[in-house]
Amino acid sequence: MSTPDAELRRRRRALRKASRSVPGHGWSHPAEELERVAACARANDLAQDHYGQGAVIEDLEDEVATLFDMPAACFMPSGSMAQLIALRIWADRAQNRHTAFHPTSHLELHEEHAYRELHGLEAHLLGDPERPTLARDLAELPALASLLVELPAREIGGQLPSWEELLELVAAARERGIRLHLDGARVWEAAAAYGRELAELGALFDSVYVSFYKGIGALPGAALLGPEDVVAEARVWRRRQGGTLYTALANAVSAHTRLPEQLQRMPSFHARAAAVAPLFAAVPGIEVLPDPPQTNMFHLLLQGEPAELELARDAVADEHGIWLFGGLRSTERGARTEIGIYGAALELSDAELQGALESFGASGALRA
Amino acid sequence: MSTPDAELRRRRRALRKASRSVPGHGWSHPAEELERVAACARANDLAQDHYGQGAVIEDLEDEVATLFDMPAACFMPSGSMAQLIALRIWADRAQNRHTAFHPTSHLELHEEHAYRELHGLEAHLLGDPERPTLARDLAELPALASLLVELPAREIGGQLPSWEELLELVAAARERGIRLHLDGARVWEAAAAYGRELAELGALFDSVYVSFYKGIGALPGAALLGPEDVVAEARVWRRRQGGTLYTALANAVSAHTRLPEQLQRMPSFHARAAAVAPLFAAVPGIEVLPDPPQTNMFHLLLQGEPAELELARDAVADEHGIWLFGGLRSTERGARTEIGIYGAALELSDAELQGALESFGASGALRA
Repeated sequence: MSTPDAELRRRRRALRKASRSVPGHGWSHPAEELERVAACARANDLAQDHYGQGAVIEDLEDEVATLFDMPAACFMPSGSMAQLIALRIWADRAQNRHTAFHPTSHLELHEEHAYRELHGLEAHLLGDPERPTLARDLAELPALASLLVELPAREIGGQLPSWEELLELVAAARERGIRLHLDGARVWEAAAAYGRELAELGALFDSVYVSFYKGIGALPGAALLGPEDVVAEARVWRRRQGGTLYTALANAVSAHTRLPEQLQRMPSFHARAAAVAPLFAAVPGIEVLPDPPQTNMFHLLLQGEPAELELARDAVADEHGIWLFGGLRSTERGARTEIGIYGAALELSDAELQGALESFGASGALRA
Repeated sequence: MSTPDAELRRRRRALRKASRSVPGHGWSHPAEELERVAACARANDLAQDHYGQGAVIEDLEDEVATLFDMPAACFMPSGSMAQLIALRIWADRAQNRHTAFHPTSHLELHEEHAYRELHGLEAHLLGDPERPTLARDLAELPALASLLVELPAREIGGQLPSWEELLELVAAARERGIRLHLDGARVWEAAAAYGRELAELGALFDSVYVSFYKGIGALPGAALLGPEDVVAEARVWRRRQGGTLYTALANAVSAHTRLPEQLQRMPSFHARAAAVAPLFAAVPGIEVLPDPPQTNMFHLLLQGEPAELELARDAVADEHGIWLFGGLRSTERGARTEIGIYGAALELSDAELQGALESFGASGALRA
């Protein structure tokens, strides 16, 4: 990602605020969600929670456990905390420090190797980084306590194994006595893409992490789902990691009240991604990965200099009022960015987006 | 603490809401602070923070570092996280897993021994549990990487060493090359009780944790203060512990906007505690610990059955509209509860409180 100066950052914030967006939920003032939660707390005369206890937390935990048809759930302040705790519990139970996940897993790339530095786990990175984990990746590994599977795999454009490949992977892990943990940062989106119920995914895994702030668009928060005893132990680890907070009312109410509507909309996000991606791919110098998208998410590879491409994007936002993509990072294959299709893109017509993309293509920043 | 049934819990919530309180900040609807923060975010057109970065977080960090005249500060979601991280960093630097603290430290009593289970530290519990840590407690210990000192010591009624005793403790630790960490969960209150500037406390310690939700009355949050390089490392550990959240705007704004006024009021809380404690102590069957209070906090020891005493307290709240104390726990010396004097008690006259205490004394629940 290029590092623009303060003046450019200010201009971009203003542009994003004024524009309709292709990726994401669309701009909203940070006060808006707090106001919505406060109004809900007033209307329902909600009582304050207290260190993880209280109806606002427990109702949310019940709701997500029910959605996945799993015995129990525990609210967590973050997904990083939820997943580390799951892997630690499975390791302790198996008396085996070995776990495994995709080379681009959040745990490998974005958590400062907490699994090793904090929990003393050893991780095996599975298979080709450019494709999802498959059953054959488990061959020739030492005995594992757990396997973490991210559905979809975010860093490779939201790729999913086919349902059959997923069942094969699960069967291969079960055969080896490996506990299966689902990195469900975007599991709502995965279920919509598979055309499956969340409970069908829950049935395949021993523990599941779900996130509330990404696809659901709520305040930060997550949950860890699993057997009663595992979730009870997770509450102990949540306290150890410093995640049992005096109150999480705003986060829990935000998540709980957004879930039903956002879950209903997930299939429309996937469908919109399928329609939007070809419009990008039609522009010379832009490649879509994977093509076609397998979920509501895909990556763009743009040929050109990131800083120039971002200025061209800014100019399109100025002219068309449409924000095409977020920050770009340089890769060997071009400037790369992630597009997650949520509510914002539903408000854009194909013709409007095509017009914006034609301007972008004509800017000269793309090397076709 | 007795465990009342759901109906009694509902009645008590209603009583607390309707009553003026001796301990704490007084009842407020959980929506109120969210509304206040949202209004502030609108009025100042605040921009969303992003994984620990952004003006709302950085301004708060600068503010607390300045208050303590320390080089740097890092926002933390909880004090548990802040303190574990500080002790881990000092242990890694010294290549020594040994730390030490008071037998009633939060780390020993309330964190499921995370220092050991999560960070592999070994803790030495110092001295007599009924008094603050003193310099002589360091004798006959192995080499320590760090010493954690809680000011005031919450579990023993907010006791403080004298300023001279504190300087002796600090000197003894420095002589042994031990890093000093301040558990400042209530350091704002300690400084007021000492009649010292926060910076005078900061000067004695290598790292300091402060809390925003207790005495400040803000949404949950904390900060870890220390040298630049230590705080930079703490940010890495915050990510590892799952504490670098997508947004903490509400928490940061809540803390930052409450700090100035609450800090100004700290001496008045201490003064009010000094006036309120004798009113309790005058009731036969009630003992104040320590007597007189050394900060704005003290414990009550009540002779009688906790459940009966709590019902008598409820009756006083019903009759006088005054909530005398929170939950009681059985101890060998009687039913024990903590009184922290904040804004609520400033709104109560001595005569009103005396009237309520006379009713309580006449209830028959106390065994004089």
